[in-house]
Amino acid sequence: MNTTATAQVISKEDLLNHWQGHRNLTRRVIEAFPEKDFFEFSIGGMRPFSKLVTELLSIGAPALKAIVNRDAKPYSEDIGELKTKADFLQKWDEATVEINSYWNQISIEDFSENFNLFGQYEFPIIQNILYFVDNEIHHRGQGYVYLRALGIEPPFFWER
Amino acid sequence: MNTTATAQVISKEDLLNHWQGHRNLTRRVIEAFPEKDFFEFSIGGMRPFSKLVTELLSIGAPALKAIVNRDAKPYSEDIGELKTKADFLQKWDEATVEINSYWNQISIEDFSENFNLFGQYEFPIIQNILYFVDNEIHHRGQGYVYLRALGIEPPFFWER
Repeated sequence: MNTTATAQVISKEDLLNHWQGHRNLTRRVIEAFPEKDFFEFSIGGMRPFSKLVTELLSIGAPALKAIVNRDAKPYSEDIGELKTKADFLQKWDEATVEINSYWNQISIEDFSENFNLFGQYEFPIIQNILYFVDNEIHHRGQGYVYLRALGIEPPFFWER
Repeated sequence: MNTTATAQVISKEDLLNHWQGHRNLTRRVIEAFPEKDFFEFSIGGMRPFSKLVTELLSIGAPALKAIVNRDAKPYSEDIGELKTKADFLQKWDEATVEINSYWNQISIEDFSENFNLFGQYEFPIIQNILYFVDNEIHHRGQGYVYLRALGIEPPFFWER
């Protein structure tokens, strides 16, 4: 039971579970793509899903590490050479473990502190973290359209 | 300044601003659609954007009202006859005011309480509300692909 003193709109643990639940769904969307289409299929000049996932991998764990270390280093998509869906899924799983580990190093008080993410986005840490989740949902939603256009049924949105 | 007793991962006010910021972006995505395409354009057998927005309007304000009143009435897309983009935008703006009003009637302690939304989704209220936001981002991301496929530049994702 919450007391007035400790009641939270959302607890730190629940916010992590929320994010990792979304990451688990994104992982299944990656799995749903045929190998070739993951790297090549696109609509309206947009990036293929592999490039969108590269962006997500360049944010998630590296950005959380930057927050923990208050390191305002620039954004980079240099995440190593990922050539296959299996490479991406392995990197995804490594990021899952890293995110859990860095999360433990953030205090409740940290969330309202400002941090200049990537030397570019000066916002309270909670806003930066919500951006990571929102950006993932946004791009994954685009992946859903790619899958539908390919005649593939995507995973249920509400299954995490 | 936060004290240990009052520190929040996210404050109630900031979560409302976060949601309304997303709603403001969705409004601009609605505006970006040509009238005809808003009702007719789709990819891969998906719903046109007007139908996705109907879903969002059937959740947002009605769902928050249901939470405030602890009224587990079933989900319904019966939101009145909306025939034009202008009708949708007006309904959107009415929902903005309603959401602000209902939000004031939720306490911090309420967020961790279970509620059976639409008589179907028995979860803590914070999870239901995050679902509203996530579902909106998800479908709006799909709207972005529709716009790109139509050769229309969508609004910047980070502008709220």
